[in-house]
Amino acid sequence: MAINIEYVILRHLQMELKAPFTTSFGTFQRKELILVEVVDRDGVSGWGESVAFSAPWYSEETVKTNWHMLEDFLVPLALAEPIHHPEELSKRFSAIRQNNMAKAALEGAVWDLYAKRLGVPLSQALGGAKKDIEVGVSIGIQPTVADLLQVIERYVAQGYRRIKVKIKPSWDVDVIREVRRVFPDVPLMADANSAYTLVDADRLKALDEFGLLMIEQPLAADDLVDHARLQPLLQTPICLDESIRSYDDARKALDLGSCRIINIKIGRVGGLGEAKRIHDLCAERGAPVWCGGMLEAGVGRAHNIAITTLENFTLPGDTAASSHYWERDIITPEVEVHGGLIRVPDAPGIGYDVDRRQVERYTQFAKVFHRTATA
Amino acid sequence: MAINIEYVILRHLQMELKAPFTTSFGTFQRKELILVEVVDRDGVSGWGESVAFSAPWYSEETVKTNWHMLEDFLVPLALAEPIHHPEELSKRFSAIRQNNMAKAALEGAVWDLYAKRLGVPLSQALGGAKKDIEVGVSIGIQPTVADLLQVIERYVAQGYRRIKVKIKPSWDVDVIREVRRVFPDVPLMADANSAYTLVDADRLKALDEFGLLMIEQPLAADDLVDHARLQPLLQTPICLDESIRSYDDARKALDLGSCRIINIKIGRVGGLGEAKRIHDLCAERGAPVWCGGMLEAGVGRAHNIAITTLENFTLPGDTAASSHYWERDIITPEVEVHGGLIRVPDAPGIGYDVDRRQVERYTQFAKVFHRTATA
Amino acid sequence: MAINIEYVILRHLQMELKAPFTTSFGTFQRKELILVEVVDRDGVSGWGESVAFSAPWYSEETVKTNWHMLEDFLVPLALAEPIHHPEELSKRFSAIRQNNMAKAALEGAVWDLYAKRLGVPLSQALGGAKKDIEVGVSIGIQPTVADLLQVIERYVAQGYRRIKVKIKPSWDVDVIREVRRVFPDVPLMADANSAYTLVDADRLKALDEFGLLMIEQPLAADDLVDHARLQPLLQTPICLDESIRSYDDARKALDLGSCRIINIKIGRVGGLGEAKRIHDLCAERGAPVWCGGMLEAGVGRAHNIAITTLENFTLPGDTAASSHYWERDIITPEVEVHGGLIRVPDAPGIGYDVDRRQVERYTQFAKVFHRTATA
Amino acid sequence: MAINIEYVILRHLQMELKAPFTTSFGTFQRKELILVEVVDRDGVSGWGESVAFSAPWYSEETVKTNWHMLEDFLVPLALAEPIHHPEELSKRFSAIRQNNMAKAALEGAVWDLYAKRLGVPLSQALGGAKKDIEVGVSIGIQPTVADLLQVIERYVAQGYRRIKVKIKPSWDVDVIREVRRVFPDVPLMADANSAYTLVDADRLKALDEFGLLMIEQPLAADDLVDHARLQPLLQTPICLDESIRSYDDARKALDLGSCRIINIKIGRVGGLGEAKRIHDLCAERGAPVWCGGMLEAGVGRAHNIAITTLENFTLPGDTAASSHYWERDIITPEVEVHGGLIRVPDAPGIGYDVDRRQVERYTQFAKVFHRTATA
Repeated sequence: MAINIEYVILRHLQMELKAPFTTSFGTFQRKELILVEVVDRDGVSGWGESVAFSAPWYSEETVKTNWHMLEDFLVPLALAEPIHHPEELSKRFSAIRQNNMAKAALEGAVWDLYAKRLGVPLSQALGGAKKDIEVGVSIGIQPTVADLLQVIERYVAQGYRRIKVKIKPSWDVDVIREVRRVFPDVPLMADANSAYTLVDADRLKALDEFGLLMIEQPLAADDLVDHARLQPLLQTPICLDESIRSYDDARKALDLGSCRIINIKIGRVGGLGEAKRIHDLCAERGAPVWCGGMLEAGVGRAHNIAITTLENFTLPGDTAASSHYWERDIITPEVEVHGGLIRVPDAPGIGYDVDRRQVERYTQFAKVFHRTATA
Repeated sequence: MAINIEYVILRHLQMELKAPFTTSFGTFQRKELILVEVVDRDGVSGWGESVAFSAPWYSEETVKTNWHMLEDFLVPLALAEPIHHPEELSKRFSAIRQNNMAKAALEGAVWDLYAKRLGVPLSQALGGAKKDIEVGVSIGIQPTVADLLQVIERYVAQGYRRIKVKIKPSWDVDVIREVRRVFPDVPLMADANSAYTLVDADRLKALDEFGLLMIEQPLAADDLVDHARLQPLLQTPICLDESIRSYDDARKALDLGSCRIINIKIGRVGGLGEAKRIHDLCAERGAPVWCGGMLEAGVGRAHNIAITTLENFTLPGDTAASSHYWERDIITPEVEVHGGLIRVPDAPGIGYDVDRRQVERYTQFAKVFHRTATA
Repeated sequence: MAINIEYVILRHLQMELKAPFTTSFGTFQRKELILVEVVDRDGVSGWGESVAFSAPWYSEETVKTNWHMLEDFLVPLALAEPIHHPEELSKRFSAIRQNNMAKAALEGAVWDLYAKRLGVPLSQALGGAKKDIEVGVSIGIQPTVADLLQVIERYVAQGYRRIKVKIKPSWDVDVIREVRRVFPDVPLMADANSAYTLVDADRLKALDEFGLLMIEQPLAADDLVDHARLQPLLQTPICLDESIRSYDDARKALDLGSCRIINIKIGRVGGLGEAKRIHDLCAERGAPVWCGGMLEAGVGRAHNIAITTLENFTLPGDTAASSHYWERDIITPEVEVHGGLIRVPDAPGIGYDVDRRQVERYTQFAKVFHRTATA
Repeated sequence: MAINIEYVILRHLQMELKAPFTTSFGTFQRKELILVEVVDRDGVSGWGESVAFSAPWYSEETVKTNWHMLEDFLVPLALAEPIHHPEELSKRFSAIRQNNMAKAALEGAVWDLYAKRLGVPLSQALGGAKKDIEVGVSIGIQPTVADLLQVIERYVAQGYRRIKVKIKPSWDVDVIREVRRVFPDVPLMADANSAYTLVDADRLKALDEFGLLMIEQPLAADDLVDHARLQPLLQTPICLDESIRSYDDARKALDLGSCRIINIKIGRVGGLGEAKRIHDLCAERGAPVWCGGMLEAGVGRAHNIAITTLENFTLPGDTAASSHYWERDIITPEVEVHGGLIRVPDAPGIGYDVDRRQVERYTQFAKVFHRTATA
């Protein structure tokens, strides 16, 4: 079944987060993002979302580098010839180094269109079978420990299946000890966001007593080698995020022993195809995976739900409810969490309708790429 | 009834004409145009179309100057405060000199939204009552007179109510003589497109014998004074197009005797409000008017139909069928001509639905302007 | 002597005026402008300046419409073939309607290059012979009459040869009366900036008693006809500014009796060539001219000085000293006024060196157009 | 000595290579590049050059991503506060992940300005002492082996001190055997450009017999781990290029044994500061380094010459003469190679004057960033 994309629409959206979000680059509440719509000859649409941020604080990619890659390289390649299966795209894009978030956004839209043309949910097209997925939540650094405990209490009450607490050298061991004291049994993990170096090995070791599910990305964002020297010193499994950009990175990390768990983000690894390959490798190697979050709007959230239905996604992911982040999401219905679970949609494709009027309310500008003009 | 526009979408379209169109600037077949959509809080849309061309051959305005005026001045002014009636806009835009096509495109969209909110056809909101409008056709300079006669024959057979033939010094008296010989009774007019000067008075005088309805814009595009010296020398009425940009221009032209007929183009005079005022003045002064054409797509065509329903539009206009210009127009149904007549739609607003998928197929890029961000 | 332009540089500058400037569109102190540099094969540069403002309050043109016209139409036409004389450009640009300021900026640069290649001052290349030019000054609407009188006193003391006072219906007869009382003999004129209509004829008539040199542009910005009905009612000569965009406009204005004096602005009429033709016509008809100002930076100022050396520029113009407007102008030396006179430079071309470092300090962005790529 | 940058000019140049250059992304002959000029209060300029290409075939960076990073993040950071030493910038830029070529371009310009303010050559400011540097040359894949031998002969005759031949699976062992047969003693190396995987270990092993100086980047562009498994199987030293983006990468590569030689490219590692740190580390570890080439224009070439004067740059680099690539370079004098040597300039800063007129001939557009507006 060939997918003949007639045109691609890139939309630059600007959405207001419910709460400010703090990064190494500063705090923001306005999230810019690119929405990708691929439309075939029958007017059927597939939707994808770029997870790049406005500034290069998480990785080198930004909304602008993604737009550039999509406009100047990826969309023309996608329009150049019919696509028989979404997985063809990673090969078709291979001459372009990195720029994974841009590739993932376009490939995701093609996956959605592909599943819709097959008349099956995207989850099923990916090989997933779960009816529900377990959802954890990620809590940023709070003003005080008391505030943190209050926030955790609220989320535990809402049934979230795992609590992730951001840590950094001045906000780690004592904080986790206090959390553990109040919540002895809650599935708890710490996200270090590359705030540590090998010099801090002992501090990280001190977290072993709290039975954390994992410590996420303790060392440099592009490292495998130093993590392989750290993991043997810790009982707590290391989970890698930014360091894993591809199947090969996962293979090398598992070979070197850099980590025991991998957080798969579709955008970070270059698309659903590569995410699936990393999932399958980790399944073979007995390394559990879970789906990380990047403050996605509804379309990105729907893709995260679909990939999380794959069997070896055994740990709760970060894909919270739409209302956790947005006053009004761009999909109907919105993603909802009940008792820490998200019901996997069974409609074709991503399983949620895109609310075009709501998308317009967030759109700043858009560009349309036509087969004739580009091919 | 206040119109609260929540956001405005400017779309830059590129549509392929069925046949190449020749101007003093060269020949083109690809027409760029701006589509304006104003959306109120209830998601109701009003549509307008800028008639500016890509190059400044008809007037100083182009698609790019229109986009600049809309983006940087006119849309912010329209979003600044609620609009109680579309006619407020010409005053609100008055500090901006000329740039009429840009003003008309936005005012037209507001008129459409206003009429839709009232639940009446735009024609009725403008004070028009006709059920049908008479349609003429405009024929460019042909390779040979024989070709011209063939084209005229086809349009006469299709029932068009008036034939307009483009003339220039090397293609005028002999050509019209031959047309008159073959079509002695057809309502016939000549469009000179400013190709003559006062020196050519005698050549123009030689057309008197053919009982033309009018000679359109014989002299310079911005002139009233020289036309007032020419008209007394001719029996054939002069009709002015480019020279009339406002109510004041019409007043001065009629005072000076520069013309006896005025071709009203909504875009050229700055909007439906000013077009109405010129219509009413000409009605008072006994000067018939008709509606000129600018190769509009469906939305512009619908606005032309609506204004032509005003009583003193007594001469057939240039608003031909959609299929006369486009393989596929952006409205459903398309504008059709039967027996030289267009049936005036009675649905609210412009009376035609905009086909969003078809608009996307022609859209190159778009920008959305939000009340909050702009106001 | 063919002028072979190898490349053209458009620079978008942003300069801070010494004092805020108030228009119908609001007050601004930051002036954006386009500087045009044409460079021939030997690396000789000719400089021109667009007088368009950021907003279309004076005319429909803006900095952005000028950039668009230069980039998309005028520069490619100028680079298409060698130029034997700057006057060829107005014909070469003729298919482009209006957009005079854009045309004038590029033509001006070619005139400067042309004069430099001839080794003569631009003034001489234009046919001017004056060694000095007389300079008047223009004073905006002041908070109080007392303030106005103080400002006039200062300029009279500096030797400015003519005082221009802005008037509007609520700030005219009484103000002028007071000015005349304090300065009975100073050469005085009023600039109405289209603030009146024919209804105000009597108010304007009341100014006759003050022996004004002229009233500038009392009625609408694009009018000749109503001014022709007003002038016979006044003793004070009407001077037209915005209404005169071409030689033909001047001819019609003088034929109709719309004015007795014309303020020639190079940018408004489309270039030095057309300015010269209007000058020559007015000389034939006994109508004095003077050179209006548009807050130019040094390059525009130098062009104004050059055109003002033509014989029939018998009334002092608005081309004040650089320091009247700018902390630091972009030319060395700066334009200076001594005893109400500017010494006409005798170096080749515009006669002032462009200070490239200072230009860089004001430049926001620039674009270079190369013969090969464009031609 | 604080460096107070008053404004920064980014220029987008387009230069025509003498010969087409073939990459995995296709062949190009037109090279786009960004030139960075930082200007201090006294009008002294420092020059840097981005080595990014138009398409992301070498790394994820392109000319457009570099312009985006410089405009939106790096230039504002550089203008935010005075700079006491160029090495402060890598810390000041640290919140921005990767985007090394953009960082290097700006830091390089600041180094040039810093050295000029000190009145010393850039080489000396970096701690280099060589009077000359040895130059090798890099030869792309040729149509036939005979062609390759001819090209090598020419360069050997010109005195180039080392020959680099590009190889790929279908153009390696037999080709090198033939080259060695004709040139038994020439210092010879092979550049694999990531064309191999571990599966090809034996093919690479077969090159051992030819006494190559090194094999450059045989495996994936972002790999350290697989190279560490390959190196023990080969006698020929592996040299890493794309894999080494930072001091940490170099440390890990040497720790893991991924390579024995490092090709330092200033742009790839994020600037002269990081290049120096990698040089010093390799000196400590006894791993020779050399300076790779990226088709630089004169400014980039001058920076390469300066860094190559550091002591542990013991192997000839790729910095050939200007005329090897460009009909007309942007510096005067141009970089010349005599007997395989480039004389290190002793004028302050980069030691070459930038030819502003020639820069203009290649400039497409430019943007100026001012301290006030940005800081």
